[in-house]
Amino acid sequence: MSFDLILFGGTGDLTWRKLMPALFQAWRHGQLPPGGRILAVARDDRTHEAYRDFIRERFTEVDSAKRPSDEEFAGFARLLFYRRMDLSQPEHYAGLKHWVEAPSADEGRADGPADTVVLFLATSPHLFPEICAQLGATGLNGPRVRVVLEKPLGHDLASAREINRAVRAAFTEEQALRIDHYLGKPAVQNLMALRFGNALFEPLWRRESISHIEITIAESLGVGTRGDFYDRTGALRDMIQNHALQLLTMIAMEPPSSSDADAIRDEKLKVLKSLRPFTAASVERDVVRGQYRAGTVQGQGVVGYLDEAKVPADSRCETFVALRTGVENWRWAGVPFYLRTGKRLPGRDAQIVVHFRAVPHSIFPGPARANKLVIKLQPEDGLELHLMAAKGSGTHERLSPVRLDLDFDKAFPSERVGAYEKLLLDAIAGRLNLFVRSDEQEQAWQWVEPVLRHWEADSEGPRAYAAGTWGPPASSAMVARDGNAWDEEA
Amino acid sequence: MSFDLILFGGTGDLTWRKLMPALFQAWRHGQLPPGGRILAVARDDRTHEAYRDFIRERFTEVDSAKRPSDEEFAGFARLLFYRRMDLSQPEHYAGLKHWVEAPSADEGRADGPADTVVLFLATSPHLFPEICAQLGATGLNGPRVRVVLEKPLGHDLASAREINRAVRAAFTEEQALRIDHYLGKPAVQNLMALRFGNALFEPLWRRESISHIEITIAESLGVGTRGDFYDRTGALRDMIQNHALQLLTMIAMEPPSSSDADAIRDEKLKVLKSLRPFTAASVERDVVRGQYRAGTVQGQGVVGYLDEAKVPADSRCETFVALRTGVENWRWAGVPFYLRTGKRLPGRDAQIVVHFRAVPHSIFPGPARANKLVIKLQPEDGLELHLMAAKGSGTHERLSPVRLDLDFDKAFPSERVGAYEKLLLDAIAGRLNLFVRSDEQEQAWQWVEPVLRHWEADSEGPRAYAAGTWGPPASSAMVARDGNAWDEEA
Repeated sequence: MSFDLILFGGTGDLTWRKLMPALFQAWRHGQLPPGGRILAVARDDRTHEAYRDFIRERFTEVDSAKRPSDEEFAGFARLLFYRRMDLSQPEHYAGLKHWVEAPSADEGRADGPADTVVLFLATSPHLFPEICAQLGATGLNGPRVRVVLEKPLGHDLASAREINRAVRAAFTEEQALRIDHYLGKPAVQNLMALRFGNALFEPLWRRESISHIEITIAESLGVGTRGDFYDRTGALRDMIQNHALQLLTMIAMEPPSSSDADAIRDEKLKVLKSLRPFTAASVERDVVRGQYRAGTVQGQGVVGYLDEAKVPADSRCETFVALRTGVENWRWAGVPFYLRTGKRLPGRDAQIVVHFRAVPHSIFPGPARANKLVIKLQPEDGLELHLMAAKGSGTHERLSPVRLDLDFDKAFPSERVGAYEKLLLDAIAGRLNLFVRSDEQEQAWQWVEPVLRHWEADSEGPRAYAAGTWGPPASSAMVARDGNAWDEEA
Repeated sequence: MSFDLILFGGTGDLTWRKLMPALFQAWRHGQLPPGGRILAVARDDRTHEAYRDFIRERFTEVDSAKRPSDEEFAGFARLLFYRRMDLSQPEHYAGLKHWVEAPSADEGRADGPADTVVLFLATSPHLFPEICAQLGATGLNGPRVRVVLEKPLGHDLASAREINRAVRAAFTEEQALRIDHYLGKPAVQNLMALRFGNALFEPLWRRESISHIEITIAESLGVGTRGDFYDRTGALRDMIQNHALQLLTMIAMEPPSSSDADAIRDEKLKVLKSLRPFTAASVERDVVRGQYRAGTVQGQGVVGYLDEAKVPADSRCETFVALRTGVENWRWAGVPFYLRTGKRLPGRDAQIVVHFRAVPHSIFPGPARANKLVIKLQPEDGLELHLMAAKGSGTHERLSPVRLDLDFDKAFPSERVGAYEKLLLDAIAGRLNLFVRSDEQEQAWQWVEPVLRHWEADSEGPRAYAAGTWGPPASSAMVARDGNAWDEEA
């Protein structure tokens, strides 16, 4: 199945940092279908060769294990092409169409058009409506074509709807693939396998057995050089509206009747629609926003958010969010779901912790800790099942916590595939499971909208927290109101 | 709390192979209460010093890590004393009573009688009625006294009842501690913690989630030099009536209301009473007996059972039993319990495998394996939870089996206590949980009785199996009738 993959924003960060390394790995692993071409499209004038050199140089910034040898890069580079485009010029789209539909043997294709054309929009999202309109007008939206959209897809419900309207004017829902790169992570794919490939968890996966669930996506980094972008976005839009909510849907969804993309996405949408809506009062009570001040992260002194490059000195942008919600259905009624994310937290850890209820009646001396299942997404992915066991002491029968571990990297060595590699291969093959449907995405925006509106109107702004801590104390206090505590073992 | 521990059969195998090493370990670990004396009682004349020498020499046959240094042995030996007794002579019991009640400073006790007297009957069980009667007649059965009885406690229901009657004539139920050394194994104690210290398993621990349960106690050894003893016993009496049934009760029991010994033993007894009784027809169908022939075990050629020393050439003794039963109550109705034990099997493995039901509806391609929990008792103890996970392959979402592991030795290093060490310490401290009550024991005999009777009358005798195999093929066929298979991964 031959393909043309066209990368809009072909000289941008996303392309050289993420997409090219992912494509190279897919090529190296023999996963990339044969007969493929990768065309980078950007504003400046370059030859194919100059573009290949540009990419080769950028590969030096990649993990050494993932860096190509000279020979490997030479092989991979034969797939790479470059084309200058001004994205506002219809004739440039016509030229692109010609490149795709009447390919030349000089440019890697001797046997007519490719079976599949994937247009990956790795540009700023405010360009998406224009690009989609032009693609549609040129006729670069036929049934062989799929368009891949990178986040952020809008900055609120209205703008998301506007983008989706523009996308839908040119493409069908099945042609439009919205990336949430969290869905490409092996640990996230494993959530589906864990829940629906194992009968073991199903009787436990409900309010009768589960006390509460936490989802944490922590970063130790600050905003780096992206202060201007970040300041327009904030943690709620950057992490909660997409990644954290996607994780929540996969934890909370009912069993789908098949692995068909829409069967799964229908169930995920149902969860999003069942989320308890925020009101002004509940935002006050159940959402904590924070902004980091100077502090120490992993032994290193770091500046506060307001002193970061390109950040306005009076910014009210949140770099931390913790919130408490619930899924209002029979399975989950009364079970708190706690979500939290932030920059300059103590570690780069993403995990879901399913806290089970305590034993109803203990026959052992001393307090019993409740069981929990920790699904680790980052830095490594794995499972930890925390149980209580008897220490084989001669004199006292005491319960002590023990842990059953599974490290997916060890369980499946050499089978691991990065998130972008997985998603790019899926986009090329037309597997839609791991892409976000427009109704899911709009529903997620609709759910965060009252929080955004409340914050805009709120004179208080985010609470301060020292870099290297787990956010403002109000985050722990919110969870403590339910008698719970964030899992902060590490 | 001072104690006198008196070992009847003080020069026998059990004493020097198991009890003395266990007592030494308890002493070395500082677990043995201070103010203790250990008196070995046997038929021949020895001085204390000669007995200590005898034990010191025997320690060379113990694991090197568990062997005492000279200095350690000297310390431990100060607790050891010896006394000649003819167990049929009342005056010898009177002498023992005097030794206990009017101790001399020469013999390790200057401050009057010990708080606790534990009489450990490590003799042949046919002597138990006589010993108990004499102890009772002499008055060595006061409230400070406990008697510990080693298996085999009888060879059928009638003989077990006879022993229990004799024991009860001299001692209360609370004074009579029946050892099943399997109950002292850390992994077996952990069964209680696993089931009742964790809310996680309770919703799963029932017919709705569990398909079947297997209990295997496999030995790679043959009968060694104990052919005469073994030939009078057989695998059903040696392993099933006691160890395997005890494991079954701990797997199947309802949650006890407390960790009180009788609360637990009441629940275990209920399970034994709920076991499906055997009939002549069901023995034919659901019990397989075997006897090993020559073969190869772990690379070594070995002789058949009939060629072992001290085994009659026409023996019909079973060295292997596999059986299928059920627990007839609401929790377990319809769930097969498979028990098997044997000598000259491929390995020395004891394990319980809880097989969960398959997912009711699979959304993944290919056959899904059902989950299982493997509770390993021997050679190491640990837990394995077998799940299905997604291999993170770029092209196919396949489910593959993965395993969460827990090795108790690694989880609790330096906290591990051997079975006899645990049971001796419990006997001294008067903790009864891990001892078998007479009604449990009689109920277990009652359950195996129809099998014993059917075999006696059956002209066919045991089926042959080659040493180094998993018993006669009929064992697999019995399980296969239910669509199941023994777990024989190793």
